[in-house]
Amino acid sequence: MTTARLETFADGVFAIAATLLILNVDAQVSEDVHDLGARVAHVWPSYLAYAVSFVTIGIMWINHHTILAQIERADRRFLLANIGLLMCIAFVPFPTRLVAEHVRSAGAEAAALTYGFTMVATAIMFSLTWLYASGGKRLLRQDAHPTIVSGITRSYLPGPWIYLGATLIAFASPTTSVVLFMAIAVFYVAESSIFGSSAPN
Amino acid sequence: MTTARLETFADGVFAIAATLLILNVDAQVSEDVHDLGARVAHVWPSYLAYAVSFVTIGIMWINHHTILAQIERADRRFLLANIGLLMCIAFVPFPTRLVAEHVRSAGAEAAALTYGFTMVATAIMFSLTWLYASGGKRLLRQDAHPTIVSGITRSYLPGPWIYLGATLIAFASPTTSVVLFMAIAVFYVAESSIFGSSAPN
Amino acid sequence: MTTARLETFADGVFAIAATLLILNVDAQVSEDVHDLGARVAHVWPSYLAYAVSFVTIGIMWINHHTILAQIERADRRFLLANIGLLMCIAFVPFPTRLVAEHVRSAGAEAAALTYGFTMVATAIMFSLTWLYASGGKRLLRQDAHPTIVSGITRSYLPGPWIYLGATLIAFASPTTSVVLFMAIAVFYVAESSIFGSSAPN
Amino acid sequence: MTTARLETFADGVFAIAATLLILNVDAQVSEDVHDLGARVAHVWPSYLAYAVSFVTIGIMWINHHTILAQIERADRRFLLANIGLLMCIAFVPFPTRLVAEHVRSAGAEAAALTYGFTMVATAIMFSLTWLYASGGKRLLRQDAHPTIVSGITRSYLPGPWIYLGATLIAFASPTTSVVLFMAIAVFYVAESSIFGSSAPN
Repeated sequence: MTTARLETFADGVFAIAATLLILNVDAQVSEDVHDLGARVAHVWPSYLAYAVSFVTIGIMWINHHTILAQIERADRRFLLANIGLLMCIAFVPFPTRLVAEHVRSAGAEAAALTYGFTMVATAIMFSLTWLYASGGKRLLRQDAHPTIVSGITRSYLPGPWIYLGATLIAFASPTTSVVLFMAIAVFYVAESSIFGSSAPN
Repeated sequence: MTTARLETFADGVFAIAATLLILNVDAQVSEDVHDLGARVAHVWPSYLAYAVSFVTIGIMWINHHTILAQIERADRRFLLANIGLLMCIAFVPFPTRLVAEHVRSAGAEAAALTYGFTMVATAIMFSLTWLYASGGKRLLRQDAHPTIVSGITRSYLPGPWIYLGATLIAFASPTTSVVLFMAIAVFYVAESSIFGSSAPN
Repeated sequence: MTTARLETFADGVFAIAATLLILNVDAQVSEDVHDLGARVAHVWPSYLAYAVSFVTIGIMWINHHTILAQIERADRRFLLANIGLLMCIAFVPFPTRLVAEHVRSAGAEAAALTYGFTMVATAIMFSLTWLYASGGKRLLRQDAHPTIVSGITRSYLPGPWIYLGATLIAFASPTTSVVLFMAIAVFYVAESSIFGSSAPN
Repeated sequence: MTTARLETFADGVFAIAATLLILNVDAQVSEDVHDLGARVAHVWPSYLAYAVSFVTIGIMWINHHTILAQIERADRRFLLANIGLLMCIAFVPFPTRLVAEHVRSAGAEAAALTYGFTMVATAIMFSLTWLYASGGKRLLRQDAHPTIVSGITRSYLPGPWIYLGATLIAFASPTTSVVLFMAIAVFYVAESSIFGSSAPN
């Protein structure tokens, strides 16, 4: 299978997962609310959670294309690894809602842990997908540049550990954990903004 | 990255955001309604809100392609700008529902403001995306025609101000504000209908 | 704009509108139902409505491609006509749910009318879209065959009237009206199955 | 019609059906839950059901491309068969939710039967779609390899019977039935993982 087919399916899942995030915001404001203005202001964590998860999924979509740009063809194991990765990404709206709804209440720890472990699983699937494709140059394009390939490997390996660290902090302080999730998203945006115009895509 | 990849993702978000609008209408008619006919007639603002937001998202989809048609390639900053833009567009179903449900009640002001500021943010992201790509001809196609390029710039710059004006009127009269949002959509349709068959795409 | 861009967006709306239909079935079976088996059997109109609307949207998707296959390019008016058409198609899940929930109760008339007029509007938008593109060969491909073009025109023109007839019958007998909507879908499937392997696509 | 058009639509339905599965998990955790951590742990069947159905839809997506890779063109009957197939696949989120919610209660039998018969219908539609296309080499590519073609036929024919067997066991033991559904998904993943890197795609 060419990677073109995989891209259509993957882009679909990325786009739908990101767009479904708005349903979380929507569910926070019921129709029979008394003071709409106060309620719309009160649910501000929902907007923030929407933005953080939308941008995170967006960054992952960019990274997925960075991977596929180095790949010649897809075999069945690579397709399965991608299905596992997309399964994690399509899961993101659920923990996003939990964090938005419970960050200010007793459920904050459980919410932060659910969000965090989803991100850890996603980062692990990302690394596995890439390592399978690039290991022994299994699926790489003939003209894939060694510097780019090793650069991708280097930049993906810390991902699971960074998210694991931010997740485990939730046992001590869920709020700190959530702030770190935001900081990671901001970091990735900043990194792309600063180095983005010269970096290879 | 070529712009083809970006188009698949962007078209997905535009299509999903527009199609999800029907869920707002759907939620207005509960299963155990007593007089279905009366209820279906009573929720007419939902149909109008559905139409206005669907057409607005549709026009934005057309404009997005007008932009991309002038662009040669996408760098990471341009992708990030697009993710920011799509984040605004995927947000539209939420304020659309607020307006449909509250335009006839005390929540009209909050609903109109939420809808309006969403549109202001969307228009700003549209301008920023275009200005980044076209500034210094950064990402433009070599054969991009200067007249078309400056024409796009001229036609996008007023967008945020027009929506800001219509939004601020909500403090005085939310209904007027909502009517203006409809008028802006009708204007864009009329503009395209009158000049559309000769204009470059 | 080439028609390729339009197809991505349109295919997205067709696919999402069809797939969202399952949410109507889903909403019919609440989590705390006492006798799940009885409930799953009781909501059989939901399965039938799901199938009829899914197939109807599927047939419309086929027809949309039949149209686009004859078209060279898209101007802004044609894009707007398509947005209007897709707005109707994305609306279909709502009246589908109304029919499924109310066909056996007092709301049957209102449900059938809502479903019917949605179909009338969709058929009208289909005809308008085609007539704009084919009128004076405005957007047709140079090699578009006159027989195929006039064949499409002939086959689309009765659509609104057939649906209008089936809809108006709802004032006398909503059940007859709903049976006719099913019969129309079955007819289109049968027509395609019988003539489909030889007909041009 | 070329198969490219069919792929865009089909990939859309596959991607949306898979991504909508998260709504089932989401609905299991209401906003006003008392102990979020306990609830998130309690609904573990939802995560398992999400994973099994996501992977099953993913495997079907791979198989659908395996079919299309052997096919030259699509006629109307083939498109209709595909619409029937996609109608089954878009249905999967509903029985997935039933199983996740009721596997530990009295509704387990009805849930397992609904899930099982959905899979039987999907497997039948898969076989019919392929048999129509490959019968008498009706739609096959000129260079389609006989070994691959007969291999696909052989591997699809048992599908409906395997799922029927697993389904009927639900009358004796719904839990066994559900475990078998999981085993079938695991088997397909294992089969692809072991033979996947050498098998033709």
